[in-house]
Amino acid sequence: MTNDAIDALQALIGQPFTEGPSPLGRWLGGVLRAAEPGSISMAYTVREEMTNPAGVLHGGMIASMMDELIGMTVFTTTGRYHASVNLSIDYLSSARVGDVVICTTRIVRQGRQIVHAEASLTREDGKLLARATSNLLARD
Amino acid sequence: MTNDAIDALQALIGQPFTEGPSPLGRWLGGVLRAAEPGSISMAYTVREEMTNPAGVLHGGMIASMMDELIGMTVFTTTGRYHASVNLSIDYLSSARVGDVVICTTRIVRQGRQIVHAEASLTREDGKLLARATSNLLARD
Amino acid sequence: MTNDAIDALQALIGQPFTEGPSPLGRWLGGVLRAAEPGSISMAYTVREEMTNPAGVLHGGMIASMMDELIGMTVFTTTGRYHASVNLSIDYLSSARVGDVVICTTRIVRQGRQIVHAEASLTREDGKLLARATSNLLARD
Amino acid sequence: MTNDAIDALQALIGQPFTEGPSPLGRWLGGVLRAAEPGSISMAYTVREEMTNPAGVLHGGMIASMMDELIGMTVFTTTGRYHASVNLSIDYLSSARVGDVVICTTRIVRQGRQIVHAEASLTREDGKLLARATSNLLARD
Repeated sequence: MTNDAIDALQALIGQPFTEGPSPLGRWLGGVLRAAEPGSISMAYTVREEMTNPAGVLHGGMIASMMDELIGMTVFTTTGRYHASVNLSIDYLSSARVGDVVICTTRIVRQGRQIVHAEASLTREDGKLLARATSNLLARD
Repeated sequence: MTNDAIDALQALIGQPFTEGPSPLGRWLGGVLRAAEPGSISMAYTVREEMTNPAGVLHGGMIASMMDELIGMTVFTTTGRYHASVNLSIDYLSSARVGDVVICTTRIVRQGRQIVHAEASLTREDGKLLARATSNLLARD
Repeated sequence: MTNDAIDALQALIGQPFTEGPSPLGRWLGGVLRAAEPGSISMAYTVREEMTNPAGVLHGGMIASMMDELIGMTVFTTTGRYHASVNLSIDYLSSARVGDVVICTTRIVRQGRQIVHAEASLTREDGKLLARATSNLLARD
Repeated sequence: MTNDAIDALQALIGQPFTEGPSPLGRWLGGVLRAAEPGSISMAYTVREEMTNPAGVLHGGMIASMMDELIGMTVFTTTGRYHASVNLSIDYLSSARVGDVVICTTRIVRQGRQIVHAEASLTREDGKLLARATSNLLARD
């Protein structure tokens, strides 16, 4: 199943991710950049409704992109449903409306019960905006 | 200034929070429940676009509610702009479309440079859904 | 088993904790203050070898007291072995050699697989030094 | 100053770290493996008093090694004192008495006020035991 799921993702590279099973994922409106077992990259364009009072990409939106993409990576890689146990995010720099930001995930350790994964968010110019780690528990 | 900001918030208790300065905050669409120096409570109704593929409130939306409300609490309490340094969230239970969830914040330590705050999210029936801690850096 | 374990702990209140099963716990040398299902308090006296170059209680020692006591709380409360999945600590203030610091734990959610717990560290004068949250996975 | 501090460290590579300014650091008893601006590696041998009731390297000792080495890295790289704001650790695997474990740090972002750093701990056989991130605040 895993390979099929990754293959299916790879067929969508470069296209807006409008048909995925995640309602918030569709609202975020990413464009898939890369997918392989254990790692996915998705590009998002910052919209005004994604910003905070300072006019920059909201910390909660950064968390949303990361949690969404980590979940997708774990499901397509393991073929099993997992629930996020925790998500720990460090904010390093900011992005503004119209900026394209790229979220990239990596499964660090794939245990039988717990998967440990990380995510980073960068601007197109390579500037690192945020990093996160998450632990997820297999639900079946 | 602090007291004025809290007074202004208290005048909005019970009303939809549609005029705030945060674009994402307006999209989240909360209703203010309580506001005092160092603590704010806001109720949100879970909409379909806030959910994940499992049909439950997305972890990123929980982060959004918490980061949004912590930021509002720190600004109205201190009168100064702060940037989130980090946000660490633990997920404990889930909510579904139509559920009302209540986010409540508390400033634990108000330092000159760093403010340490926490947030919890509960369902209306009192079930604890998530908890978070955050450190914020004064920007001026 | 749980009640027996708590009863056994309560018989040790006020005594140096020199016979416990944890080698590092014995080295830390705490004195039990309180024990009940889901919560334990232990007092530690800061020794010179527990400090950092700034002459204050080392962040790693704070982590050690918290991880040790959370583990003890989870084992005596659930009767099962758990492994720490993560530990997230926020440092708020400092203590010096000779200070007595009190670590207090609380199980926030006792799930079948994951236990979510927190710990705080305060000085005898009530000053809050640090807080932590941890998720632990049942190993059997 | 930075280069001098790194040079001084590099002269100690391969030697037990018995003369450092950190009392806990001396107790941990590491052997310096590598030092450059923004990154240090130190090897530690697991002693019995560093273990937990399960007979494995205590989570608090892992935190101690990481917090100690991150602090050393930030001081020698920036030449300024910093205080740890937070430390977030994920535990991935375990080590036993007699094992040699290697802690390696990296400064991810060196800001004027906040330094963001990470650490990993591996066994000599390359097995990843734990990872951490930390934010530190300049104190002067």
